[in-house]
Amino acid sequence: MGKVRVDITMSLDGFVAGPNQTLEEPLGRGGMRLHDWAFATRSWREQHGQSGGEANRDSELVEESTAATGAYVMGRRMFSGGSGAWEDDPNADGWWGDEPPFHAAVFILTHHPRETVVKQGGTTFNFVTDGIESALQQARAAAGEKDVLISGGAEVAQQYLAAGRLDELQVHVAPLLLAGGVRLFDNLGTANVELAPVRVVASPAVTHLAYRASGRT
Amino acid sequence: MGKVRVDITMSLDGFVAGPNQTLEEPLGRGGMRLHDWAFATRSWREQHGQSGGEANRDSELVEESTAATGAYVMGRRMFSGGSGAWEDDPNADGWWGDEPPFHAAVFILTHHPRETVVKQGGTTFNFVTDGIESALQQARAAAGEKDVLISGGAEVAQQYLAAGRLDELQVHVAPLLLAGGVRLFDNLGTANVELAPVRVVASPAVTHLAYRASGRT
Repeated sequence: MGKVRVDITMSLDGFVAGPNQTLEEPLGRGGMRLHDWAFATRSWREQHGQSGGEANRDSELVEESTAATGAYVMGRRMFSGGSGAWEDDPNADGWWGDEPPFHAAVFILTHHPRETVVKQGGTTFNFVTDGIESALQQARAAAGEKDVLISGGAEVAQQYLAAGRLDELQVHVAPLLLAGGVRLFDNLGTANVELAPVRVVASPAVTHLAYRASGRT
Repeated sequence: MGKVRVDITMSLDGFVAGPNQTLEEPLGRGGMRLHDWAFATRSWREQHGQSGGEANRDSELVEESTAATGAYVMGRRMFSGGSGAWEDDPNADGWWGDEPPFHAAVFILTHHPRETVVKQGGTTFNFVTDGIESALQQARAAAGEKDVLISGGAEVAQQYLAAGRLDELQVHVAPLLLAGGVRLFDNLGTANVELAPVRVVASPAVTHLAYRASGRT
């Protein structure tokens, strides 16, 4: 069975999005800068149908994560930026157009039931209304031998972390201070989680910190 | 002239002390674990009059920071854990006994005037009541060609960071989730600070992230 992973970019001061998230600026003020390192890589650009980019170590790590992943879990807000009934959500189709970059089953946590959406290139959007354990179970089944990637946002990552469900946590630390926004680590309760450093990779653009996570005994 | 540096240990979730700080547990619940990596080094132990410890890369970085430092600035709470009038502070002498590990001038930010205290081994405790700029100016004068180290706590580091006074920021990321306590990065306002990665050093115990800091233009 594959691992359950979080793989997410955070500013040095702990934010995965800046303040004032809107439909126009879904990552909040300054939040797009978090991902400059990824946008510059060949592998990220290929996944998003763009040419160019650097074939550097950062690019290898993006590729490594994607290649290992068999299914994705994400929150409703990450999917569309919205909340509430789908028919009132101006971005109900998600951010990624006709051929999203996942090429796998994506499980979206929501309180609002909806039929599965089949996209081009192998992506399916599956809407899960019965909680994080159910979403994980469905994602594991879809992923087969591969990993389940908990894509975010922060609240969803926190819920899986606090529930002791993560096997690996990779945080890409961007050299930024956002000074506000959405914190990756928040609401962890007593956080009975042990972390063991697995790997550190540094580039001029970002530092990749990988940890093995396990429940504290 | 030397640099103005912050050199501080933070949990992966951003805390420099755990919840519930007391005189008995000045770093809060779980907070001492932040410094396990340092306690294990030969250089930290030597500075604190203890034998043993590992002469590893972590130890070299502790030594490097200490050797470069000519004067320290810290907050009142870091100095004694107290607040208010000195005569009512049960720990008014600080945490470090007759021969503190600084061997240099230490400038303590406080609202309560007090005569300079001269300790064995070259440490002086100087109490500054007219703010962070004055403390920095006095520390620069005392440091000569060497660096001024902003020792903490978090609020003091934040004030110098927000004021654009830091030249370098080294964060030792401990593989821990404290899930509460005192955040290193908080109250940064608009944080017009640019960070440029300078060096990353990883050991099994901790990851050392060094950045050059500059005002955003």
